[in-house]
Amino acid sequence: MQKLNVGIFIFDDVEVLDFAGPFEVFSRTRLMPGIESRRNADSAPFNVFTVARSIELVRCTGGLRVQPHVDFASAPGIDVLVIPGGFGTRQLFDDVDVRDWIRQMAARAQLTTSVCTGALLLARAGLLSHRRATTHWGALDLLATIDQTTTVERQRRVVQDVVFTSAGVAAGIDMALDVVESLYGRAVADETAKYIEFPRGQQFVA
Amino acid sequence: MQKLNVGIFIFDDVEVLDFAGPFEVFSRTRLMPGIESRRNADSAPFNVFTVARSIELVRCTGGLRVQPHVDFASAPGIDVLVIPGGFGTRQLFDDVDVRDWIRQMAARAQLTTSVCTGALLLARAGLLSHRRATTHWGALDLLATIDQTTTVERQRRVVQDVVFTSAGVAAGIDMALDVVESLYGRAVADETAKYIEFPRGQQFVA
Repeated sequence: MQKLNVGIFIFDDVEVLDFAGPFEVFSRTRLMPGIESRRNADSAPFNVFTVARSIELVRCTGGLRVQPHVDFASAPGIDVLVIPGGFGTRQLFDDVDVRDWIRQMAARAQLTTSVCTGALLLARAGLLSHRRATTHWGALDLLATIDQTTTVERQRRVVQDVVFTSAGVAAGIDMALDVVESLYGRAVADETAKYIEFPRGQQFVA
Repeated sequence: MQKLNVGIFIFDDVEVLDFAGPFEVFSRTRLMPGIESRRNADSAPFNVFTVARSIELVRCTGGLRVQPHVDFASAPGIDVLVIPGGFGTRQLFDDVDVRDWIRQMAARAQLTTSVCTGALLLARAGLLSHRRATTHWGALDLLATIDQTTTVERQRRVVQDVVFTSAGVAAGIDMALDVVESLYGRAVADETAKYIEFPRGQQFVA
């Protein structure tokens, strides 16, 4: 089975659950339901890895330390690109290398996604022009100012346009499950939600 | 302000969201509500760190690589002990060092908690004798066999006895929020849930 490469961008002061939620969903999805199928990768449709600008340890918000799998230079082709958020996004607003990398990866990816304030980086890269999108409730107004052609949706956990964006932090889990559903159908997404005991399909809570 | 030390045990093949969910909740809790208070640790009631048997990189389920903050020997006192689950728990069932360490930390902690199959390790350490407890839905029967004096609760996301145990994976987020509520009140827990946009208070979904 040809697996899709899921590349999750991480950086200093990335919010932990922003990337760990999608990492969990994509790495535990199985086309074969149940507990046993999770013991190996035979029916896993995704190959999931973290990507950072360099291979040095990343210090996440709260201090969690993660060793990236690959850097920009060594990353394989990415089919599903995940851009998480966190306070660290602010340092990347004017970072041309990161902006170019996101733009290049998004151009080649089958699907580009963001969690929380990761949407601000997508907007800075021009990827939300004339798109509907969302972000963390504390950044909705900021998102609207970056690209005035973006329609900011304030009442949804996940917005599915050409790019999938999600509301804050835990909503990234909903987003990842929606990606699974769009690629492999509702039964696979619901069964993955059951495996990780995530209450899928809740309304907006913020 | 005196912060409580939250020590989260990690090990090879720990389930990512099992430890990342509580890490997110405890590290982002603030006694002062809002976005700005999250920019520093002034009103943070917890000091959160990961603990492993040794300081080597931990390879989590799905391949996420995490650098532990401290090892067993160098860990500071732990006020809130978190034991996550994952397939890696099976390798630790008969590990006397891990069992003794859990028992010692739990004896000194203000509160001991588990996520998912972390409850199996607590049971092996004798900490669930004559207690009510839960675990991932796929391990409920196994939990009942480890210590026959444990009352296994099959319909709750979090069971609050002397030890707090939770159902699988994402239910660890509920558990951590319940700990916050038990220590700092409902308003602080609900505001933290709002910050991370987690739909608190859902019923059992598995």
